[in-house]
Order: sequence, then C-alpha cells, then structure tokens
Amino acid sequence: MRSQALGCRLMLGCQLVLACRALSGGARLGARRLAGAAPRVAFMSTTVGAPAAAPRRTMVRTLLESDEAIVSSPVLIKGWVRTVRDQKTLSFINVNDGSSLEGVQIVADAEGTADYAAVMARIGTGAAIAATGTVARSQGKGQLYEVQASSIEVVGECDDSFPLQKKRHSLEFLRSIAHLRARTNTIGAIARVRSALAQATHAFFANEGFTYVQTPLITASDCEGAGEMFRVSTLPAQLSAMPRDESGKELDFSKDFFGKPAFLTVSGQLAAETYACALGSVYTFGPTFRAENSQTNRHLAEFHMIEPEIAFADLFDVMDNAERYVKYVVREARERCPGDFAFFGSLVDKELPARLDVLVNEPFERVPYTTAIELLRAEIAKDPSKWEFPQVEFGTDLASEHERWLTESHFRKPVFVYNYPREIKSFYMRDNEDGKTVAATDLLVPGIGELIGGSQREERLEQLKLKMRESGLKEEDYWWYLDLRRFGTVPHAGYGLGFERLVCYVTATANIRDAIAFPRFPGGCEF
Amino acid sequence: MRSQALGCRLMLGCQLVLACRALSGGARLGARRLAGAAPRVAFMSTTVGAPAAAPRRTMVRTLLESDEAIVSSPVLIKGWVRTVRDQKTLSFINVNDGSSLEGVQIVADAEGTADYAAVMARIGTGAAIAATGTVARSQGKGQLYEVQASSIEVVGECDDSFPLQKKRHSLEFLRSIAHLRARTNTIGAIARVRSALAQATHAFFANEGFTYVQTPLITASDCEGAGEMFRVSTLPAQLSAMPRDESGKELDFSKDFFGKPAFLTVSGQLAAETYACALGSVYTFGPTFRAENSQTNRHLAEFHMIEPEIAFADLFDVMDNAERYVKYVVREARERCPGDFAFFGSLVDKELPARLDVLVNEPFERVPYTTAIELLRAEIAKDPSKWEFPQVEFGTDLASEHERWLTESHFRKPVFVYNYPREIKSFYMRDNEDGKTVAATDLLVPGIGELIGGSQREERLEQLKLKMRESGLKEEDYWWYLDLRRFGTVPHAGYGLGFERLVCYVTATANIRDAIAFPRFPGGCEF
Repeated sequence: MRSQALGCRLMLGCQLVLACRALSGGARLGARRLAGAAPRVAFMSTTVGAPAAAPRRTMVRTLLESDEAIVSSPVLIKGWVRTVRDQKTLSFINVNDGSSLEGVQIVADAEGTADYAAVMARIGTGAAIAATGTVARSQGKGQLYEVQASSIEVVGECDDSFPLQKKRHSLEFLRSIAHLRARTNTIGAIARVRSALAQATHAFFANEGFTYVQTPLITASDCEGAGEMFRVSTLPAQLSAMPRDESGKELDFSKDFFGKPAFLTVSGQLAAETYACALGSVYTFGPTFRAENSQTNRHLAEFHMIEPEIAFADLFDVMDNAERYVKYVVREARERCPGDFAFFGSLVDKELPARLDVLVNEPFERVPYTTAIELLRAEIAKDPSKWEFPQVEFGTDLASEHERWLTESHFRKPVFVYNYPREIKSFYMRDNEDGKTVAATDLLVPGIGELIGGSQREERLEQLKLKMRESGLKEEDYWWYLDLRRFGTVPHAGYGLGFERLVCYVTATANIRDAIAFPRFPGGCEF
Repeated sequence: MRSQALGCRLMLGCQLVLACRALSGGARLGARRLAGAAPRVAFMSTTVGAPAAAPRRTMVRTLLESDEAIVSSPVLIKGWVRTVRDQKTLSFINVNDGSSLEGVQIVADAEGTADYAAVMARIGTGAAIAATGTVARSQGKGQLYEVQASSIEVVGECDDSFPLQKKRHSLEFLRSIAHLRARTNTIGAIARVRSALAQATHAFFANEGFTYVQTPLITASDCEGAGEMFRVSTLPAQLSAMPRDESGKELDFSKDFFGKPAFLTVSGQLAAETYACALGSVYTFGPTFRAENSQTNRHLAEFHMIEPEIAFADLFDVMDNAERYVKYVVREARERCPGDFAFFGSLVDKELPARLDVLVNEPFERVPYTTAIELLRAEIAKDPSKWEFPQVEFGTDLASEHERWLTESHFRKPVFVYNYPREIKSFYMRDNEDGKTVAATDLLVPGIGELIGGSQREERLEQLKLKMRESGLKEEDYWWYLDLRRFGTVPHAGYGLGFERLVCYVTATANIRDAIAFPRFPGGCEF
C-alpha cells in the first residue's frame, strides 16, 4: 500500500519540480537571480511528463484544517524540523512552520524521496526544509494527514550546538534563549494567542466605533509617581562632558534633547482623556514603563496597556465596556487558536477551559467595595489565622489574598469591585456624593487578581483642583488637563488593562516574563 | 410647517423625558447616585402621557448615515457645540461628537424647546450639550437631517477663554494647544483616518496570517546608530548622587536599572527576525525613536513603524506584500472615513482623490536602482541647472529631488526602486550575486518620497559576519542575531513603513507633527 503510493508520488513529484522550474520565469526568476540565489531544485529527473500545476507553498495549519479533498494533492511545505525518527530506509520528520502548534509529519523513504540518504544526513532538529510531496491520510494517531515527500530541499542546516535539541526545557532556561524560544510549543502558543488577543482588541474597538490614539511615551509632564520613572536623555554619559548649571553642581537640562527633564510614561490616560473629549470614544494600546525594582513574576519594567476612554460615560458604562471587551477577545482568541488552547488545557492547566467558559458565558459579578469588605470580614472571622492580613475594614487597600478569595473562592468568576475609598485611589477619580468613596472599579479575575483598573474621571473643575491640592500636585503642571474641565467638560470614564496579565490569564502562564517576547526587568535587558 | 412640527415634537419630547426618568432605575440610577450626579432632567412637564420608548444616545454619524426612515424618530444627541447661529427666537446649533467630520444641526426655538432662553444663554462654541428631539429633513443645504430639540441639557459650559472660538486657525497655532486641537475639523479628520489606517493594519496582517509581535523599546544591544539614540536610566540626576566607577571619573552603569547602559530602540527589525524564524510571518507596530536634532516637517523624535518580517521570502515577496498592504489600508480608510476624505480632497488638496485612486487601482512601478540612475541621468542632462544635485551615478544615495522626480514626474505613481549599491545600505541586507548590489528596496510615493524601506536579509552566516566586520560591528554584540543563521537559517525579508508618513500621504498633511497626537521633537515635549 505504502510503496505503491510512493511510486505514484515519485512520478508526480518529478512533474511538479519540472513544472515549478518552467513556471518560475518572469518576475520570480528575476527576483532569484537578482537576489543571487541559485535555483533551488532538489533533484533532477530524467522522466519528462506533461507539466502539472506547480504546488505553491501550503501552510501547515491550512493543510491540517483542510477537508478530505486534499488527500493526494501535491503540496510544498516549508518549515523547521522539530523531530526526526529514522527507521532504516524510512524517516518521519515533524515540520513546524509557526502557523499552528501542530506540525505536519513528512514521510521520506529511500524509494520515494530523491537523494534520500544524502538529504536525511543533513536533517536534524532545528533544520529548515522545503518538502515537496503528496498529501496522504496519516497512518499515525493524532493527525489526519501527512505528506509523503518526493523531494526535500535542505534550506538551512542546524548546528549541533542548537539548544532546543531536547524535547522539554524549563521556562527559566528558555528565557535565556529568548531569541529561539518561540520555536517551542509553549512559547509559540503564547505568542500566537497574544497576537490573536491584540488583533481582536483592535477589531473590538473598531466595531464599537472607538478611535485608536497612540499617546506619547516620552513625557515631561507626567509627575505622578516620578520616583518610578525612567529618565530619557541625550546628555553625554561621561561625567566630564555633562553640561552643568551656573552653580557647576547640577546638570543643566536646558541642554538636553527636550530642553528639560523627560521620562518614559507610566500611563497614556491623561493624554487619552484629551482625545476622548474631542472624538468621543478612544483607546490607546501601547507600552508603558515602571522602573520598579521588582523581581516578581507579575511585574515588568516595560509592559503594555489598553486604555479606553469614553466621553459622556460613567462608571457603569466602563464596566459594561470592559466586560464586553474581555469576553470578545477571549472568544476570538479561542476561535482562532484552537490548537494552542487545547495544548494549554491539556498540558498546562486542566481547569483552564472551564474557567474560560465561565468567563465568556456568564455575567461578571459586580460588588461595591463596602460589600466586599463585609464579605471578607465574615469569612476572616471564621478563622483569622488563615490570613496574612486579617485586619480588613473600610479604607483597607485589598491585598492579593483578599482579591483572590473574592474572585476564586467566593464568586468563582470575574468580579468588578467598585466605589473604593477615596483615600486609597488617584486624584483624577470622581468623588461620589457620600464624601468617602470615588467612582473607581477594579476587575478581579481568578488566578491573576487585578486585571483592570477603571474609574469615572473627576470632570468638575473645582473638585479636581481640590483633589490635586490634596495629592500635592501643582495646577501649572496640569494646565492642559484642567482645560478639559474649563471648555465643555463632560462626564467621562475609562479603564486600563494590563495586556500581559490578560495573556497570562488566558494562557494559564504563571510568569509574566513568558507572556512577552523579550521581557525587561531589573538587570534584564538582553536581546 | 415648522411650527406644526414643533408642536408635535413638544409632546413627544415631554413623554420622552418622563420615560427616560422612569426607565433610569436599577443599575443606571444606582450608578448616577453612587457617582454623585443629580438626575439630569432639562425641564419638568405638566403633560403626562403614556411613557414612550426612551431614546438612547444616537451618534451623529449614525444619524447622518441613516435612511429616510429615521425622520420623525426621537433621538438624543450628545456632543460639543461647534457653532451657534441665533435668530431672535430660533437657534441653529452645530453639534459634533467626534464620530464624523460633520456635525448635526440642532434647531432650538422659543416655542418648541424647553427653557429656550435660559438654555441658549449658557450655550456657546465649545460647550457640551445633550439634546433630545426629533429628526427632521434639513431645511439647509449640505445635510439631509437635522434635529428639532424639545430639550437641551447643558452638560458643560465653555469658558470664554476657549481658544477655538474662531473658525480657522493656523496648524502652527493648533500645535500649541494639542490637547484641544482634535476638536477642529482638520486634526479630528486626521486622527480618525490615522485610527482607521492603524486598525486596518492589524486587520490586513491578521487576514494574511501574520503574528503581531510587540518588540521591546528599551534595548541594550542596539548598537547601530547609537549616536542618535535616547539613553534610558534610573540613575539620579544630581551630580553629587551619581554612582561612579573605581576611577571616580565615570558613571558606574552597573548601578543603573538594567546593570548596563540602555537606550530607546530605533527599530524592531532584528527582534522581529527572531520571531519570523520561529512563527513564519510576523509584524511589529509600535513606537521607535530617533534622537536626531532635526526640526524639519518630516521627522519626529518619537514615531511609529510597521515592520513585517517574512520567513521563506525574498525581496519580491516583500514588494508584493507591501503593495497589498498599502492598497488595503488606504481602501479601508477611505471606506470608513468618507466624510474626512471628502474634506481633505476639497479643502486641503484637490488632487488627493485622483492620487489615491491611482494608488489603490494601478500596480506600483518596480524599477532597479541602475535603471533609475539611467533615467535620472538622461533627465538631468536636459538641464542640469534645474537640479540641486545634478551628479548622479551608480553609488549615489538618491536625494529627495531625485526620488520625487521618479515618483511624481516620471512614473506618476508609487515606485519600488530595488537592488541598491551595497555601500549605501545596511549590513543586514543580502548581497546580490553581482557583488555590487544588495536585495533592498525603497517604495517612493508622490508628495512624500520614501515611505517604505525593505530588504531581503543576509541569511548566510559567513556573508553576514563579513558584512558586520565591514561595518565595524562586533559579533559578540549580535550573537543572538547570528544564531538565527546557525540554526536552520532561511531566506527571509521584511520592510519598515513610517506610519506617520503614511498618514501624511493619505491625508495630504504637510507637517508630520500634525499626523500624531502629541509630537516629540527637539525642544518639544509638551502635554
């Protein structure tokens, strides 16, 4: 059965290669010639048949998701070898091209594959190949199709020092080879899901009529939390060359690129507010920076935030939008990356699928902060010794153990806690009538804790000035922010979502450094 | 006719306000109460009718694009007043909510609009209002519909110092009030088109199976062009507090956040290559930085690049992809922002529509660099005095006047120039067989010049090492980049597109500082 099929394939393969060459004239051939590449023909044939249609490259995912009609079709697969199993004159090569978690099995043998022995001698884990062949029903389990190769071109061999030879590596080790780790199942899957979430983010906001605003990263006016900001400068790094002020004792920032000290922003919110107060509904999606000296698995020095801002909206509009957003992007990502989610659900966290089902199908809980405090007090009273921070009362900034109990144990689903004490929240959040709370909300999710922080913004000029004074902020530093309250002020509200936390949540990734291509953290700035 | 309509409206309006109040219980009322806002009812009515359906907010664009069936429907419009024309007991208020360039005309009068005089006394340019009323066919020209207001709520008055009182302001003046300028026609339109282009960018690459990779902005290994990079640091800015090395003469960067000098990246390409060599086709879309001391209208210190990178691809694949990309996003933006494009085409540049038609409908030109040189030499020979740089020969780095002649005068469409002399191009570009050129391409477009720069990357380890030596680069700084050539190297190619230049091109914007929300340039870091 197999050998007969191979015979057919051989003939077809020859025709294909010839056809391929015949059709590679014009611009394409020109390109090759100009680019200096020799024509890549894996073998010469003495059998001349009528030219068949040359196979264009088929992505592995396309092949694996095809219906039965693809069986017996000629295909050209290009990708990287994950594994090779040799059986004397027969080899099974798993090839992955990054389009899906699953690779496709290429079957090569002495009888049907040109230059079998010579080619296989050059192919090991990590090599890049281009395999021409015919689709067959797979004899192995787990896959519908495989490719019986008539010819294999070795595009790029792989040096023996390739660090991904073994099948399993610790995520910690993989971080040391971040330039290669996307070639592994886990990191490749996270990268694809992250991309799907990001692309779905833009689709969601486009559908909802939001304008995407790319707010600046370099800022001179971002005073809040300046202690944890990175300074941006073009002043020379040599002490002797640094410009000094008249006293000779301090740096002269008037000589710096922007004529004054500049920093990397910690949030695009204030800038986004200016655009919301012109265009209505806007969002940012870009990097933000925190110079925190924190080596936890939950913090990065450079991370990404999605910050929607909606004019003529209140805190409940924000909760509505945030809930729709999270449900939409998770649904989309699952639809677009089914193989990756199957992997996470079977090999990383068996409870993930059920957790995501709850997320997309059930309404999120909404609970006022005061109620959350009551729930916690009642629970803690049962056995205070179980808690690291048993003292909980109005004014307490909820600790991670409190947040996680609410979302993981009590409600067992995402929870918006809202109307926090004004003392523990930012100056720009809108005072509620009770004089004690502000219109702020955090979305807590199982396994992560806080995923989203949002609020209605203080749109009343005098109240905002008062709150700025209370926070020790100078009006002159925020003149433009205050202008929004002078010229047609409107109720408006928004939220910020930490994108890497969303990626961790959705992919059951424990360390945030694995949720981003090249993580930045104290002492960590490689690649 | 009008007064009869107004009578009907009055009744309907009363019912609506009452219904509105009746339906505002539950979560929504809760939100208002918690957020401390008084119920906003513009007038009390003594006419009690059966509650009608409360009008939800209608966006201006939705209204203007509705079919005739909307006439006589109740609507609630929220937005900012652009202009008010008063005629004794009748006022025409143009309200814009940012959803489109066009505002909608709200008609208020003493007879039909509650508290007419009192309300109108508080409404001027810049004020925020919420108008409840009925849709009518517009009596004026240019618009199909207007809203006859039964009640108008003044959401936020506008201080007399509002700088956008006049109808026309110079773009230069608007840059000084960048926090308000999106409320003007021109900047609002650019912002919407920019957003549409950005969202379409993600849609395009999602459709083509590309993975979005957010490459890091803070980098320690980006050695190319280090002279024009911003330094990123958390070292103290006080001279006395700066940590010093053993000699006491230089800064000790081991004490800095990353333990060594760090910078803001000038390109995500090298990082994107690592992901392309794992996932196949990837792209970045994020900010990049250039600390050039340049005050031109074509440069920004912080701008955005789209950098696709494709494995198993050559220079012609890149041209194909770039051409599809530009056509797709321009087509999408025109479809989604017809009003904005009508504005650019009528008030900014009358030739823009024809130029964009050529762009989306005709194939781009492709011409080798050597041919471009021949064309230029022949043209310059006719009258060298017309040229600032008449000396053109193989090896010349084309000046702006050369590029613009090619795309604007000779081909009159976008042109890919390809296969540039290797001496004037970067180390990572693939050497062609001729020994003189590299597989690089620039896309030149009318009115802008270079929009895209792309190349096939040097995937051969030894050639790459040679080119790095020629460029004075150290192998140890690029060990991870070289690894890609050691472990299953593949032909790959990519390009970089300056997003703000694309925005300028598509919107006929002359100064790049108007193509971004808050521009950063030497001495410019406001807001």
